[in-house]
Amino acid sequence: MTITASPAWAAIDAHRKTFAQTRLRDLFASDAQRVGSLSLSFDDIFYDFSKQRLTRETLGLLAALAKEAKLAKQTERMFAGERINASEGRSVLHVALRRSAGPFPSSQFDVMPEVTETKQRMAEFAERLRAGKCLGHKGAAIRNVVNIGIGGSDLGPKMMAYALRSVSHPALAVHYVSNLDGAQLAPLLQTLDPRTTLFIVVSKTFTTQETMLNANTAREWLRANLGEALVVENHFAAVSSKPEKAVEFGVPRGLVFPIWDWVGGRYSLWSAVGLALMIAIGAQAFDEMLRGAERMDEHFRTTPFERNLPVIMALIGIWNTNFLGASTNAVLPYNESLKYFPSFLQQLEMESNGKSVSLGGEAMDCATSPIVWGELGNNGQHAFFQLLHQGGRLVPCDFIAAVRSDYPLPGHQEALLANCFAQSAALAFGRTESEVRLSMEKEAISPQEIARLLPHRVFAGNQPSSTLLLASINPGTLGSLIALYEHKVFVQGVIWGINSFDQWGVELGKAVANRILPAFHDPDLAGVLDASTQGLLSYCRKHIS
Amino acid sequence: MTITASPAWAAIDAHRKTFAQTRLRDLFASDAQRVGSLSLSFDDIFYDFSKQRLTRETLGLLAALAKEAKLAKQTERMFAGERINASEGRSVLHVALRRSAGPFPSSQFDVMPEVTETKQRMAEFAERLRAGKCLGHKGAAIRNVVNIGIGGSDLGPKMMAYALRSVSHPALAVHYVSNLDGAQLAPLLQTLDPRTTLFIVVSKTFTTQETMLNANTAREWLRANLGEALVVENHFAAVSSKPEKAVEFGVPRGLVFPIWDWVGGRYSLWSAVGLALMIAIGAQAFDEMLRGAERMDEHFRTTPFERNLPVIMALIGIWNTNFLGASTNAVLPYNESLKYFPSFLQQLEMESNGKSVSLGGEAMDCATSPIVWGELGNNGQHAFFQLLHQGGRLVPCDFIAAVRSDYPLPGHQEALLANCFAQSAALAFGRTESEVRLSMEKEAISPQEIARLLPHRVFAGNQPSSTLLLASINPGTLGSLIALYEHKVFVQGVIWGINSFDQWGVELGKAVANRILPAFHDPDLAGVLDASTQGLLSYCRKHIS
Repeated sequence: MTITASPAWAAIDAHRKTFAQTRLRDLFASDAQRVGSLSLSFDDIFYDFSKQRLTRETLGLLAALAKEAKLAKQTERMFAGERINASEGRSVLHVALRRSAGPFPSSQFDVMPEVTETKQRMAEFAERLRAGKCLGHKGAAIRNVVNIGIGGSDLGPKMMAYALRSVSHPALAVHYVSNLDGAQLAPLLQTLDPRTTLFIVVSKTFTTQETMLNANTAREWLRANLGEALVVENHFAAVSSKPEKAVEFGVPRGLVFPIWDWVGGRYSLWSAVGLALMIAIGAQAFDEMLRGAERMDEHFRTTPFERNLPVIMALIGIWNTNFLGASTNAVLPYNESLKYFPSFLQQLEMESNGKSVSLGGEAMDCATSPIVWGELGNNGQHAFFQLLHQGGRLVPCDFIAAVRSDYPLPGHQEALLANCFAQSAALAFGRTESEVRLSMEKEAISPQEIARLLPHRVFAGNQPSSTLLLASINPGTLGSLIALYEHKVFVQGVIWGINSFDQWGVELGKAVANRILPAFHDPDLAGVLDASTQGLLSYCRKHIS
Repeated sequence: MTITASPAWAAIDAHRKTFAQTRLRDLFASDAQRVGSLSLSFDDIFYDFSKQRLTRETLGLLAALAKEAKLAKQTERMFAGERINASEGRSVLHVALRRSAGPFPSSQFDVMPEVTETKQRMAEFAERLRAGKCLGHKGAAIRNVVNIGIGGSDLGPKMMAYALRSVSHPALAVHYVSNLDGAQLAPLLQTLDPRTTLFIVVSKTFTTQETMLNANTAREWLRANLGEALVVENHFAAVSSKPEKAVEFGVPRGLVFPIWDWVGGRYSLWSAVGLALMIAIGAQAFDEMLRGAERMDEHFRTTPFERNLPVIMALIGIWNTNFLGASTNAVLPYNESLKYFPSFLQQLEMESNGKSVSLGGEAMDCATSPIVWGELGNNGQHAFFQLLHQGGRLVPCDFIAAVRSDYPLPGHQEALLANCFAQSAALAFGRTESEVRLSMEKEAISPQEIARLLPHRVFAGNQPSSTLLLASINPGTLGSLIALYEHKVFVQGVIWGINSFDQWGVELGKAVANRILPAFHDPDLAGVLDASTQGLLSYCRKHIS
């Protein structure tokens, strides 16, 4: 039976119909305990979901849906190391990466020895580099680190490194290069001293097109600048499950760090994929991040659904997506340091749950992952918030802020937070026609003018949002935050009955690109391609330098 | 009569029903001339919309809708300087800013003298600064420029400055600061020499909260570092329609540049709001950008709908949004230099057309602006493209690429373009069950394994996209590109019958923020606020340092 055919689903749908006329204003007016009963705390995180369009009853019905989907059992299966990534026949054990003690997942299948050993090797290397003891060309200390990776080998570490730049090594510059466009790598190289630069090549297969092309260009740049005396091994480290290929490329064996098939790219921040991050923030801060994630893992695994942050967050998403019909979810950090968080979440959610086939291979009969999008909230207010307020579209929003600033300036932080809270309040409660009229009458605006402007100044409100308030930006809290979203995605995948851990959707584009590339300069090879691609190639041939 | 009640609308809707079963594969198979008839060229821009789910017939019907909405007349009204921004009683004349000759819009109402004079003053100042003749503290030449502005006073210039960094002044650093969070301004200040730093404060009213707080902090930083000898006037310029306020702040009168009420923030890149950009790229490149935009203006104003780029692009958007039911539009630049283009478009489209009230104040009965979102495409492939390919959601995509690289590296550019073309082809044409089966059989995979994996490796296809291919990234082409999207937004606004040039949706949040701010430290003042805001403030009071 698909989940949509379950009595639990039908019960929620029936309940939804009672909601058509209920507005957030009414929900707040009718229940003085609403905020207390629709908010949760976890360590230094406060999660207020009282401005979602639901009640405790809604959440109870949604929790029943989670039970129907056997969430508790599926969670245990993940933590037990079962091969829940069925299409690829793999376990899903990113939680092992932040485990402080083993054996895990079991004494028969214990990944902790290699996890621990890798972490120790990473820490040893990172601390040596941070201390200026990792030597590049002719004994010059490495001072620039360039992470070359794309997707999960880029977004997580880059996001976290920016978030934690206030605690990063002041004399080291760590850069992230991902895409094929020379306009990313080339101008960066112009600013670097090759003698003191180390590249970390991050690719599970060590064949990722973007990453290998950038790595080759980096090696050529070293050769061109350092000449005969270049010792390639002094300038490369790698993270890969194909160590032989990395060694063949020129990476010293001792600086090839493993990545395992039980950790997916978008869940790999916690592994050696986070090496550049560890170099920036140090092994201790990296460990604090892991501890924060581990605390969230334990919370997720052991807390009843109704007080379980990832479960509640997931259920709210199911409600908005499958019952209220939202097709997107806006992520709006009111914190400069979380600038890359929306992009990170885009991958985490859309690559994990952007599927329309169930685990068993059946076509889905309900919507799955919404489109996740967003920008820094304060900037967004002066850009796209117009649509959130008056565009007539349902857009559930996640507001994220930190109470304490990591770069305090007089007067800034409280104004920032006031704007964050004000926007979610304005979205929820709006401004009625009579309120606009009253305020315009107070300003002594003429009746004609009031009549003319009134409809433009009304705010419908009833736009749902949650607010995640962190006490501060620090490694542990951010570790918890990321793990929270990871488990949210897992819970939604379980309820939808899809595999959140494969990504077959990346296959076809790669194959087609391999067919197109040779046709660039040889029109004869273009004949097998579709007419649009042929037209685009023909324009390129005319305009390429 | 609303547009949805027009015969033209009904005709499109009837036509749509004939499309339910027609797939892009069929459309390509049945028409060998498809690409030729569904693509357009303009200067160095090639626009291929053959992979949209429509035919020439569809476009003809949509063009009739534009006629029904009196697009030609509305366009002339804009160019004639009529007050088409009705709710604010203003003309809409950003096109004047790129006009090479006057009078304009008419000899009775000619804005060109002040436009030309301002541009000359900007050029004189920008070139003086570029030549090292603009002096800061004790005669040190200005070498760092910080643009302080938010929304339209930030996104456009920042986007264009990054896109054109390959032609920017090599010895000048131009920075953009927008949001309230000290984590943006504070770490930047740590890297600057106050003696050689100039701040440009950009705010129409000179009261924008974010901008004034950042400007005040900048002035304090100068005072703290340069002490008694500080001459504030040496370190500030301003762009504002309130010159007295800027002078009062400490900006020398000669460095206050005007902005007029007939240019909206999100259309103001072409005005003095682009001063920091002009400083970076020089007055000549800035002028080339204006000329590129002017060429698009003339194309838009004079070309029949069926060969008119902005009109065609707008009609495709109307088709996808109002007839196929797309709620979002993904913008996917395959070009690092266009990194900020999605954010820029987000404001341009969502703030302009994210309205649900018509010009006349009636509630809209159809969808308006979609949610515009996106990232660099090559990165996106390794992140959220999974959902585009297999998520089951209709997501029209704009692919944007340049044939020639502005930072060429061997092998990179063609691989980048091959990926761009491959993704749009894969989205359009997908991969059928029998194709997957065939390819797996060729790999000698067992029948059981084929049966198990088959559904996961199928790509539904039929995901519509357009590709905008520029010959290269240069000021003129980018000027045309931005003007293209500006006019697209205008056309859609005309068809929907909304005012694309006001933004009442930003009002309420500001007002609420002003009520919240004083309650930060005084719980007594929080009583009038909603319960959720009270809860958030109470958490803040507990955790603030």
